[in-house]
Amino acid sequence: MQGLIQDAPLTIETIIRRAERVFPTREIVTKTATGLERNTYQDLATEVRKQAGILDHLGISEDGRVASFSWNTMRHLALYYSVPCTGRVLHTGNIRYFPEQLVYTFNHAEDEAVFVDRSLLGLLAPLLPQLTTLKHVVVMDDGAPTPLPEDPRVVSYEQLLAEVEEGAIEGRVTDERTAAGICYTSGTTGNPKGVVYTHRSQYLHALASLSGTLFGTNDRDRVLPVVPFFHANGWGFAHSSLLAGANMILPGPDLSPAGLITLLESEKVTIAAGVPTIWMGMVPLLEDADLSALRVVVCGGSAVPKSLSEAWREAIGLPITQAWGMTEMSPLGSVFNERAEIADLSEEEKADYRTSPGIPAVGVELRIVEPGTTDELPWDGVTTGELEARGPWIASGYYKVEDSGSFSPDGWLRTGDIAAIEPLGYVRIVDRTKDLVKSGGEWISTVAIENLIMGHPSISEAAVVAVPHPKWGERPLAFAVVKEGESVTKEELLGYLGDNLGKWQVPDDVVFIDEVPKTSVGKFSKKTLREEYADYKLPTV
Amino acid sequence: MQGLIQDAPLTIETIIRRAERVFPTREIVTKTATGLERNTYQDLATEVRKQAGILDHLGISEDGRVASFSWNTMRHLALYYSVPCTGRVLHTGNIRYFPEQLVYTFNHAEDEAVFVDRSLLGLLAPLLPQLTTLKHVVVMDDGAPTPLPEDPRVVSYEQLLAEVEEGAIEGRVTDERTAAGICYTSGTTGNPKGVVYTHRSQYLHALASLSGTLFGTNDRDRVLPVVPFFHANGWGFAHSSLLAGANMILPGPDLSPAGLITLLESEKVTIAAGVPTIWMGMVPLLEDADLSALRVVVCGGSAVPKSLSEAWREAIGLPITQAWGMTEMSPLGSVFNERAEIADLSEEEKADYRTSPGIPAVGVELRIVEPGTTDELPWDGVTTGELEARGPWIASGYYKVEDSGSFSPDGWLRTGDIAAIEPLGYVRIVDRTKDLVKSGGEWISTVAIENLIMGHPSISEAAVVAVPHPKWGERPLAFAVVKEGESVTKEELLGYLGDNLGKWQVPDDVVFIDEVPKTSVGKFSKKTLREEYADYKLPTV
Repeated sequence: MQGLIQDAPLTIETIIRRAERVFPTREIVTKTATGLERNTYQDLATEVRKQAGILDHLGISEDGRVASFSWNTMRHLALYYSVPCTGRVLHTGNIRYFPEQLVYTFNHAEDEAVFVDRSLLGLLAPLLPQLTTLKHVVVMDDGAPTPLPEDPRVVSYEQLLAEVEEGAIEGRVTDERTAAGICYTSGTTGNPKGVVYTHRSQYLHALASLSGTLFGTNDRDRVLPVVPFFHANGWGFAHSSLLAGANMILPGPDLSPAGLITLLESEKVTIAAGVPTIWMGMVPLLEDADLSALRVVVCGGSAVPKSLSEAWREAIGLPITQAWGMTEMSPLGSVFNERAEIADLSEEEKADYRTSPGIPAVGVELRIVEPGTTDELPWDGVTTGELEARGPWIASGYYKVEDSGSFSPDGWLRTGDIAAIEPLGYVRIVDRTKDLVKSGGEWISTVAIENLIMGHPSISEAAVVAVPHPKWGERPLAFAVVKEGESVTKEELLGYLGDNLGKWQVPDDVVFIDEVPKTSVGKFSKKTLREEYADYKLPTV
Repeated sequence: MQGLIQDAPLTIETIIRRAERVFPTREIVTKTATGLERNTYQDLATEVRKQAGILDHLGISEDGRVASFSWNTMRHLALYYSVPCTGRVLHTGNIRYFPEQLVYTFNHAEDEAVFVDRSLLGLLAPLLPQLTTLKHVVVMDDGAPTPLPEDPRVVSYEQLLAEVEEGAIEGRVTDERTAAGICYTSGTTGNPKGVVYTHRSQYLHALASLSGTLFGTNDRDRVLPVVPFFHANGWGFAHSSLLAGANMILPGPDLSPAGLITLLESEKVTIAAGVPTIWMGMVPLLEDADLSALRVVVCGGSAVPKSLSEAWREAIGLPITQAWGMTEMSPLGSVFNERAEIADLSEEEKADYRTSPGIPAVGVELRIVEPGTTDELPWDGVTTGELEARGPWIASGYYKVEDSGSFSPDGWLRTGDIAAIEPLGYVRIVDRTKDLVKSGGEWISTVAIENLIMGHPSISEAAVVAVPHPKWGERPLAFAVVKEGESVTKEELLGYLGDNLGKWQVPDDVVFIDEVPKTSVGKFSKKTLREEYADYKLPTV
């Protein structure tokens, strides 16, 4: 028996319509080369309609992919609405990708147009000859003196704005499962893979963000997403802030600690979100800043060291909050919040809890399983297994790529994280599946060893990978970078590890290198080390 | 182009699964004749599985309707899950209905079984011979000595609990648009009409309730729904509290001011919800109560007098909050919350705002139109029109009844309320469409006149209706009830109204009556007055 409820689809159009109708005077502040540009939601809605007109005018296909290549600005925010509300699909181009990754993703998405900040044109211009599906390169002037390339596809955004009529955004998408956005994620191997969000997934992810299990965003908030709109769906802030009626503070290209802290202070930001390095760089500046309006500083992308969270708490009374997720999860799976059970603990005990990214967000189901199986493991805080996710904003596949290995036989997303879950639901990420070493049937966490090595006073960076071993299957091999002006021998380091680990967990060898190789987004690339040392033979073999 | 997101349906099963998994130790406290019964979400989930087993055991059809006839108790809460999770439809029987309304609704819904509290059996037993679709009358023992009727359909809940195996609740409903519940609403004319909620509508309504535009319910809350589970979908608390991981305090049959205030105090309730009369009766008791845990006292069903809200604020520092909605809206359309713009106003100015039920809730779209048209009117706080609603938890029709008059040609729900909407989005209900008087082309609000008459020191109740007039089309006729021991003449009352209204708004006559007739749920029944005075002739005609 079917119910009798209106068929009101969960579309992105309803978000911008609400913002315009109920919160027309809320602010969008964009930092530009020349200062702060202040606009309202009403202005944003006008910009969205103008962009809709431009997309129609350019003749973009009904479900054509449109790329952005832009900092966090109001124009970029408007693209988050104009593109999907007209039925097209926004591909948020990642400005941090290597040239070959950019060429691959633009061609793979078959982007028909790109909207690019003039200050970022230098990254894209040399690649234009290879971007063969592009018909229009719409350059958005942000005051940068970058020369325009000699390419007939180049057109001025400002000129289009001036010449083209507003387009409609209402009623064009009625099926909430229509694609709304593509965000590529660079895995540990192969080409980046595209996650295709729907109107429904974006709406539900935003609605959940208004609840206390995520950010509890409301209309008094002033949200500063340091996290770029092109990174992991911009953590959904482009949608959740508007749905909540919150003001948005957009930093543009200046992501320096000093620039950001000035913005946090002058704009009385209440929610700020970014990766650990951003918050780490600000620590020395906290003492002189008035950040009394801040209520949430949320940090994701990689684990937040307890010392960093505590440094913030000690300086301004507000600890850093961890979030966890993946591009494949829109991206939010959990954000740390204090459950009732831990509200009365000491600050020291809470600080330990804050090293967890929290309990599963409302709407998200998490489970841990014996790797490679669907056998669920208990939430006892000790047992570790592969973390898997299910829910209405979790990917079921990748764009035009078969990758059944990323999903369990019963349809859950394999996150690739190894985790324990406490009885209270707090998740403890302990490792990546691909980074575990299986030695004599026992799992060894490479992350634990890396953290230990990096805790040595003479070491700046470390990485541990598995290498094949005839007897044990795999054994750990460590790489370490010695700090400038310091020295340490292999024997000293192994001895130090032996004092802190079980004997079977101590790596069989240490290789000193100048630097741990990095991915395009700055993460340690253990993949590169594995490839470079593919023929390496352990000394004991 | 379709997205690549998991097909995770928004079902009620996901709510109970989350509650059991993430919040197993949260409390459900039920007040019974003998004291407080304490259970956990884990216990609730077990009860739900037992009920699922009972429903299967009784052979209820795959999409059969199952009625409840019960106070707010854990068993009633469990029915909110066991019935829809097994694919059936919960019809929450209204214990306040007149016998003929009960017979009509049970037969109209074709209920196959009813789960009835023994203390309420007295209301149902005499009607059993007329309830012809019922195959099972499951009596839930609550300690009342009510004798069991001699009817072969009667069976003991406790006996079934003891004898029947647990049933499955997982994976039985996969289409989120499957019917989950029926709630009847008694209109101003004719038989009650059934609103049929879906799994999707219930889920989205609950998820929105976790946002700050409604209750912002979170896992530290202790929610006391005084509003019965059978009234207007119990305002969604049966679902939103579990989704948030909040504790629930269920009052059972004792809705006395003293009983409730003891419960509010001892259980440290944070959110309480009910109709104005409940909160009015508590005012004299507030002084001696410690209600410091309360953060929201929400009031709906009819307009909250400013004096009542202020009486609470003066007594305990917390004003009463208005909510607005309809059974047809699941029922929430808005809950008053302070927007950023009014945060710095004086308490006196805020008190005026609090007479509004708030801005449209996230997920709900509201508009005002010229009555009988789809011409939208401006949000200027002055222009009034018929209030209409659209959204994913708003009804599109009634069960087995054609009623196109309740919906606009473009599919919005006609709420029957006349309202103005302020530029900030605050809704101001001024009247009911059916209660307006159209005199010489101008609308006269009967509610405004009624409030004025009831403000006269000698009057206790008042009602104003339209009567036909040869020249003006319609003119207002007033009914008034004089307080015991007081006296006032028609001329005095009309003179008083003349001092406070435009001349054309003053009723043409006042009729003194002993009592304003009431509906089964206690509202003024102006319909009855209209019928009784159908042949009435105004003195000036």
